[in-house]
Amino acid sequence: MNPVYFDHNATTRVDDAVMEAMLPYIQQEFGNPSSRHAYGTVARRAINKAREQVAAAIGVQPVQVIFTSGGSEANNLFIRGAADSLKPGNIFISAIEHPCILQPTLELARRTSETWAMQRLAVDSQGRVDIKAAENTMAKQSPDLVSVMLANNETGVIQDVAYLAEIARSHNAWIHTDAVQGMGKIPVNFSSLKVHAMTLSAHKIYGPKGAAALIVDKRLLLKPLIFGGGHENGMRSGTENVPAIVGFGVACELAKLREAETAEHVQLLRDHLEQGLLEMGAEIFGQNAARIPNTCYFAIPDVEGDTLVVRLDKAGFAVASGAACSSVNPGQSHVLEAMDVSPMLARCAVRVSLGRSNTLAEVDEFLKATRHTVESLRQLDGLTF
Amino acid sequence: MNPVYFDHNATTRVDDAVMEAMLPYIQQEFGNPSSRHAYGTVARRAINKAREQVAAAIGVQPVQVIFTSGGSEANNLFIRGAADSLKPGNIFISAIEHPCILQPTLELARRTSETWAMQRLAVDSQGRVDIKAAENTMAKQSPDLVSVMLANNETGVIQDVAYLAEIARSHNAWIHTDAVQGMGKIPVNFSSLKVHAMTLSAHKIYGPKGAAALIVDKRLLLKPLIFGGGHENGMRSGTENVPAIVGFGVACELAKLREAETAEHVQLLRDHLEQGLLEMGAEIFGQNAARIPNTCYFAIPDVEGDTLVVRLDKAGFAVASGAACSSVNPGQSHVLEAMDVSPMLARCAVRVSLGRSNTLAEVDEFLKATRHTVESLRQLDGLTF
Repeated sequence: MNPVYFDHNATTRVDDAVMEAMLPYIQQEFGNPSSRHAYGTVARRAINKAREQVAAAIGVQPVQVIFTSGGSEANNLFIRGAADSLKPGNIFISAIEHPCILQPTLELARRTSETWAMQRLAVDSQGRVDIKAAENTMAKQSPDLVSVMLANNETGVIQDVAYLAEIARSHNAWIHTDAVQGMGKIPVNFSSLKVHAMTLSAHKIYGPKGAAALIVDKRLLLKPLIFGGGHENGMRSGTENVPAIVGFGVACELAKLREAETAEHVQLLRDHLEQGLLEMGAEIFGQNAARIPNTCYFAIPDVEGDTLVVRLDKAGFAVASGAACSSVNPGQSHVLEAMDVSPMLARCAVRVSLGRSNTLAEVDEFLKATRHTVESLRQLDGLTF
Repeated sequence: MNPVYFDHNATTRVDDAVMEAMLPYIQQEFGNPSSRHAYGTVARRAINKAREQVAAAIGVQPVQVIFTSGGSEANNLFIRGAADSLKPGNIFISAIEHPCILQPTLELARRTSETWAMQRLAVDSQGRVDIKAAENTMAKQSPDLVSVMLANNETGVIQDVAYLAEIARSHNAWIHTDAVQGMGKIPVNFSSLKVHAMTLSAHKIYGPKGAAALIVDKRLLLKPLIFGGGHENGMRSGTENVPAIVGFGVACELAKLREAETAEHVQLLRDHLEQGLLEMGAEIFGQNAARIPNTCYFAIPDVEGDTLVVRLDKAGFAVASGAACSSVNPGQSHVLEAMDVSPMLARCAVRVSLGRSNTLAEVDEFLKATRHTVESLRQLDGLTF
């Protein structure tokens, strides 16, 4: 029996309808979209259709979609691409951004020439960007670029991007949001969020790995990260990953279509999960903030997160001890640090991120397994010390 | 009936064995390799295996393989990544490099700070880098970075990369080769070519779009192009495209295994093709140079290449009028310009690039169709003027 998958913020299983749409473009219709013959034309049309699907899902025009190989590339494209189109200035990011926003921004600040000044926007104990503090910081030091994620990958906490965008715009700054964790779980609309750029990723919304997009305001000046044949209106060179892009298009369409239904389903499961966890004495991070409905980031005091994750894995449950994307670089969560969570409690953090296919029975089984594991670990502790 | 595909330098159909290897990683084993649970472990192991397969195919250690999303990204990673790890200096590239080498190099030379001086290595009338001239130029202006492709995508002409690498090394320069068109068609070995870095791409060798690699000498200092979670030893962040990487591994293994057989097969077809074309009065570019065995780049005087490609497409043959990757930016071929081909003749250029599945009968049909098309176009010309 397959383990129960509770790690949808890390990646998702490709939906059957997405798979069906992608398959013909791997072997039958394998042409290079730049080729000027029948094979190329079929591939080009497939990409154009996907571009329309992605654009429609968030309310923009197809020309605003720049396809990339993933969310990390799209985020890097915004940070470096926008910075290198401006005179060096001030870049503001939230203290809880994903490493693929944080690291390229640090890199801008580390450069020996054309160095940018980086500022982190603080969050409160619930993991929300402190709007008042942000307003004050930006008033003191006028921002040129701002990037604040729509929903945090660890806590699931939703940020007031539209309001931050208004502040940024009042300083004539360009504002970007990494919306990869919001898409498909809460309504995501480019205009409503008032941003100039937005990152989406296919593999977080039941689409394939290898396709993502940076959505841009047409006025935003951007330098490409990858130069070459001039694909994507010169903004991203390289032969398009046709099957992945086709899958991304369908995944966006489905995400939009199923948004309310998915949200209702996972919210029900999460409420049940959290009730059980609270009964076990768990602390739930960001519990009092608005969150995407599928994410539960919790800690059971004195039970190390890594240990719990390994034990639950053996018991048949796939959960995360931190952001999967940074598990290659283990260490304390910078998100919990920014929320001023004590290092002792932060070490106990475990993330459950639910998905469409999960069931209430799975949540019950998970609660049972967690209770059992925690008890046995506590007994072990009792024996050892 | 499907059109006959004669455009294998643009992209190839995914091999059945590659497809079979990839499929399980799209839906069943969809985990994120960074996740520390069963799904993640399976994905991580699959990537490790692919890394071994790619490494073995060109005689390096797995740790030397940096997976990227495509050849364009790998080439950009070398050019910008190596340049930004050095003090600005001199970068030499051949005059016939692919746009994804040429454009990032031009970008280095355009920068207002940390500007690099770019030099183009000239080619002779057969499309071979002029070794004597290269030696002289590098003696005058010592190179820091050099990049020369192994085989040209348009002409198929093979460059003496090993010899150029020796010259580059004598100046303590780092040398890179874009080997995407050589792999699978001629023997490709990292040590024999004496380079410090090499680009490979899956979709040119019957693998999927969305996976490629920069192979590096362990001493080469490189800055990432995409910063983030620290994947690929910190050299390329972003969730790995597991199915594509798995397919790439198998494609490399097969490319190596079938290299001699493929070469013999396509060489036979090409010889037959070129005999027929020469009888029609065609000029074959690079005919007297060593070429990869699948590529025939020809011109029938007074018959415009674009027109011929469109007519042949209607007749059921997929060929290219130039490099597919730059068909989005039409214009005269910079390769033919560097070879000092007259603009009149260059406008007539058509590329046939053969593959494993092509047959002698297809070549015969193609020759017939070409002869017929050329005759009808000449009749039309006779009527018009």
